Amino acid sequence: MPLVRISLLKGRPPELRRKIGDAIHRALVETMDVPQRDRFQLLTEHEPGDLVYDSDYLGIARTNEIVIVQITLSAGRTLAQKRALFGRIANNLAALGLRREDAWINLVEVAKENWSFAHFANEGEASYAGPQKISA
Amino acid sequence: MPLVRISLLKGRPPELRRKIGDAIHRALVETMDVPQRDRFQLLTEHEPGDLVYDSDYLGIARTNEIVIVQITLSAGRTLAQKRALFGRIANNLAALGLRREDAWINLVEVAKENWSFAHFANEGEASYAGPQKISA
Amino acid sequence: MPLVRISLLKGRPPELRRKIGDAIHRALVETMDVPQRDRFQLLTEHEPGDLVYDSDYLGIARTNEIVIVQITLSAGRTLAQKRALFGRIANNLAALGLRREDAWINLVEVAKENWSFAHFANEGEASYAGPQKISA
Repeated sequence: MPLVRISLLKGRPPELRRKIGDAIHRALVETMDVPQRDRFQLLTEHEPGDLVYDSDYLGIARTNEIVIVQITLSAGRTLAQKRALFGRIANNLAALGLRREDAWINLVEVAKENWSFAHFANEGEASYAGPQKISA
Repeated sequence: MPLVRISLLKGRPPELRRKIGDAIHRALVETMDVPQRDRFQLLTEHEPGDLVYDSDYLGIARTNEIVIVQITLSAGRTLAQKRALFGRIANNLAALGLRREDAWINLVEVAKENWSFAHFANEGEASYAGPQKISA
Repeated sequence: MPLVRISLLKGRPPELRRKIGDAIHRALVETMDVPQRDRFQLLTEHEPGDLVYDSDYLGIARTNEIVIVQITLSAGRTLAQKRALFGRIANNLAALGLRREDAWINLVEVAKENWSFAHFANEGEASYAGPQKISA
């Protein structure tokens, strides 16, 4: 399962926030074989001054429309898959009228056994540690 | 030291939020030898729509009572310990009247030397990098 | 690029929040060769009770002025560099009148290829995966 944290400056309407989440999730589904229903996202709005970004680092012009995305996911994706994800997120955000330059993305990789989505056994279970074949 | 991030939908009273934190910390103490006083937690409430979850992924019925827990901790725990933690958190939350299906947990593992809790030396210190034997 | 998450209890004025961010960024620049303009920070304020800390773990007296800092950065720094960073952050916060004991720091290391800052190519790019020599 990925856990997707999205950080924005305050002020975008709920409908646009939802569409941003949709865009990012669709990119995960399309480029990383994440199941359609494997969607868990946390969106946080920040006061001006509490989301700090450089408006020119690496020569990329960023604006207050910046979308900072940090995705925790299971290790094992290839560089090609990561590049495809990065590009797809930017494309999907651009389709909403956002600027590609405002897509800022970081991946945190963890072991497959580090996820748990529910526990019915007495001592629980790691959802992806067993024989299951699910991409997280 | 673990750093525990807990994400909820807005609206639970402070007393219940505290008990949720208690329940998760107790599970860490009981299953992973985390010291009782090694408690550092960040709880965030989200507007409806800003905490997105699938209500049926993997056939698990989730509700707005979902508790998303992301724990950063030192690497080195066994799968058995992780499973015990996952189950214990779900058990402890269930003891508060929450649903086991609403326990959603992810672990992020880091090197032991990646923590610092105070600095008295001129150039600081990594709290767990030395000869100390403390579980983080 | 590092991504720096800073968590505080509610109530510090924006000017001090900005200076805390400055202090942490300066430490990264000074001890880890992070470029001056490579600054991306998310600051979150928490209600009392939603930022839980132990006031004495490891014998360190912490107060409500605690500054919890979680930095995601590329792997590869030496222990000496990490120690230097930890100490410098504490020093820089102390220069603002904060207590060294209230500096609480954690590092999450990721692969260099796990960052993307903008996408002009059709399928995007991983900003640090290519031949570039940039410290993230």
